Amino acid sequence: MNTPSLADLRASLPGLKLLTEAAELEHYGRDWTRRWTPAPLAIALPASAEEVQALVRWANAAGVAVVPSGGRTGLSGGAVAANGELVISLERMNRVLGFDAVDRTLTVQPGIALEAVHNAARGHGLIYPVDFGARGSCQIGGNIATNAGGIRVIRYGNTRNWIAGLKVVTGAGELLDLNRGLIKNATGYDLRHLFIGSEGTLGIVVEATLSLTDAPPPSQVLLFAVPHMDALMQVYATCRARLSLSAFEFFTDRALHHVAAHGAQRPFGEDSPYYVVTEFDAADEAAQAQALAVFEHCLEQGWVSDGVISQSEAQARSLWRLREGITESLAPHKPYKNDISVRISVVPAFLQAMQALLTREYPAFDVVWFGHIGDGNLHINIVKPAELDYPAFIAECERVTELMCEVLQQHGGSISAEHGIGLVKKPYLASARSAEEIALMRGIRAVLDPNGVMNPGKLF
Amino acid sequence: MNTPSLADLRASLPGLKLLTEAAELEHYGRDWTRRWTPAPLAIALPASAEEVQALVRWANAAGVAVVPSGGRTGLSGGAVAANGELVISLERMNRVLGFDAVDRTLTVQPGIALEAVHNAARGHGLIYPVDFGARGSCQIGGNIATNAGGIRVIRYGNTRNWIAGLKVVTGAGELLDLNRGLIKNATGYDLRHLFIGSEGTLGIVVEATLSLTDAPPPSQVLLFAVPHMDALMQVYATCRARLSLSAFEFFTDRALHHVAAHGAQRPFGEDSPYYVVTEFDAADEAAQAQALAVFEHCLEQGWVSDGVISQSEAQARSLWRLREGITESLAPHKPYKNDISVRISVVPAFLQAMQALLTREYPAFDVVWFGHIGDGNLHINIVKPAELDYPAFIAECERVTELMCEVLQQHGGSISAEHGIGLVKKPYLASARSAEEIALMRGIRAVLDPNGVMNPGKLF
Repeated sequence: MNTPSLADLRASLPGLKLLTEAAELEHYGRDWTRRWTPAPLAIALPASAEEVQALVRWANAAGVAVVPSGGRTGLSGGAVAANGELVISLERMNRVLGFDAVDRTLTVQPGIALEAVHNAARGHGLIYPVDFGARGSCQIGGNIATNAGGIRVIRYGNTRNWIAGLKVVTGAGELLDLNRGLIKNATGYDLRHLFIGSEGTLGIVVEATLSLTDAPPPSQVLLFAVPHMDALMQVYATCRARLSLSAFEFFTDRALHHVAAHGAQRPFGEDSPYYVVTEFDAADEAAQAQALAVFEHCLEQGWVSDGVISQSEAQARSLWRLREGITESLAPHKPYKNDISVRISVVPAFLQAMQALLTREYPAFDVVWFGHIGDGNLHINIVKPAELDYPAFIAECERVTELMCEVLQQHGGSISAEHGIGLVKKPYLASARSAEEIALMRGIRAVLDPNGVMNPGKLF
Repeated sequence: MNTPSLADLRASLPGLKLLTEAAELEHYGRDWTRRWTPAPLAIALPASAEEVQALVRWANAAGVAVVPSGGRTGLSGGAVAANGELVISLERMNRVLGFDAVDRTLTVQPGIALEAVHNAARGHGLIYPVDFGARGSCQIGGNIATNAGGIRVIRYGNTRNWIAGLKVVTGAGELLDLNRGLIKNATGYDLRHLFIGSEGTLGIVVEATLSLTDAPPPSQVLLFAVPHMDALMQVYATCRARLSLSAFEFFTDRALHHVAAHGAQRPFGEDSPYYVVTEFDAADEAAQAQALAVFEHCLEQGWVSDGVISQSEAQARSLWRLREGITESLAPHKPYKNDISVRISVVPAFLQAMQALLTREYPAFDVVWFGHIGDGNLHINIVKPAELDYPAFIAECERVTELMCEVLQQHGGSISAEHGIGLVKKPYLASARSAEEIALMRGIRAVLDPNGVMNPGKLF
């Protein structure tokens, strides 16, 4: 491609790394959704905040839309570039810039992988506690842009809780240095929290100061076979009351089927409709005995039919793999994904209502449930039947999602728990946010990105 | 007062409780700052969110400014009404609306006192962990409007961390129901966090859903006499590394002087320039022995010269009173207050620079330091010499605050840690936030409060 505007960009930023080959445009123009055909103008790979700033200013002047790009592991199409946008990939800005032992903070560039953040924190005897399956590929800038959640939210909360400072380039090309790592800073609106979860529609994260914390005590992992949906919440309440939980996840037998087909070993002799993976502090024998007592109590009550407690790090990892391998095992099927949440107290009623809806509306589809019972977040994946063509499949899923939105509204829930709105959930935003809220969001966006260059068409 | 607009308000809201007596105007027109002469138009005491909404809509139509009013314990003039504003006091909306044991949330009206929130949480076997001296008078709506911090921030963070849901009436009179208690909700900009800390300039909190947590184990309180400023951070680092801290506060001998003059008993035979109060988990004898070992280590190192460990609840309270009584003991002197913060790692250098500045600039004034070493927040109170008149005193303090802003900027600090900007810190906002940030805040404010009726003149 040799449009006049790209020549102009090259001239104004001679040191910029810019990619325009077809394969590169395809690679950087899409995320883990595979519904849109990538068609960006070009891929810019800046090496500094100043280059990002210059790129955004150029985009404003040239009237070119910008798509900020991290690890592109998103599942809502937030990083898709399908309309001649300039993709700004942060992957070259991937360094640790500093560690402070007194503040217990790690300052990083936005393109660093989550796993590299984990490793850097651990190297200093601390942890960055946000964690999820895509840790090896996703980048911290994208985590911040979607307020990523994951598997340890019940103990540590979402990404939002761990951002002590944020440098961003706004849609107008201004560089903001937000909060500067302060613990207390009551000086007006906290713009840092506005950028967290804004999906690249307000600006681009160019640096983050992350809070770290102490490593937890040694943990064990318990895998339960659960015979009835009703029992899931009983098991959760018992574990929550008697163990110090860091994760409480569930998945269905259909999920296990896909993971097993992908190479994992089935954990029990007999199949069960539901499974729970829970991780808990097990520093000493008393804690381990308590876990055994919980297991026996759940068995006696008929809430679980089988179970296994990890006896080693390796076994803990292999039990976790049953839950964490689900997304990857489903990926080749290009499933339609629902990522929904309700308050924990509402989960039992909501599960019943959703099961009724899905059984009625998807009688012939393979429906794969999993998710985070402990924070009210369910992932419902619909696998395309081989005989159905893809557009017809998506249309059918979108019809059912409309019905799902009604059930969510009745239960005070949300159409996106942790994936974000992006392109995929945009038609349903009004089910989770009022017309007044959406109008205010648009107004705020116009303040931070007056020319509307930042990730247009995403979110709203 | 019988202005036409008030007659109009009475006619449009016949059931509204409205106060217009001079004593009432004075009472509700001021906060704990005593620098401005209260002169509100009237005091409205709505009984419901709908009445708040009607009041804000009336204010927009009538062109009358609104001052939201909580417990008015603020120290930055954020709740002062000195220019014919309509004060909307939330004090009649002070009920607990609900508790959910599974979600572990308490839903309250905005006018409930912080202490009543503590008691309600404790009644359900849980705690609401934000705490500070004004707990009996301050209201949760005001806590949210200033993102109140306090004495246990090192363990629990600020108010922001504990707000699961927020109902607000915007400056345009729209009622928003933000986040609805969800743990995961990735559906665009989190307007909840925009309202937290906005000091009544965007709207009025009419309901809040607060997250609760488990009560901590039993605690003890240690009071240290510290002979040198340098030793404060050594003591902090030692305590932080070896005890499970919930608070780490310091104060100077001048602070103790005022508390003692107010009736408290001096804790040690000999005076010391600095004192530390720290609270730590002491569930068992091992933890108590550890605290004793810390004390002995600090003694051996020469970092502390004396100390006392609480042996009962009553003694713990009386040690706490030495720190918590400072603000009240100073109040009759109408001190000039600085509430500043830096990153913890910067505290040692900052303390030195501040001490040099204050010794040089306030040679004749009584300067009373105290604050929260563990979160980098210092309170510096300047007591007016008897011979100086009040306006001259304030002018002198404001001159020094300008110099303090320079030192804060050199150290990446903030002119308001937890009191807010209000009227008092408005001249110094630009020392903590860039011109671009302030312009963006103004732009956002115009989106949420297009006619500028909400608390005009505060913050900026």
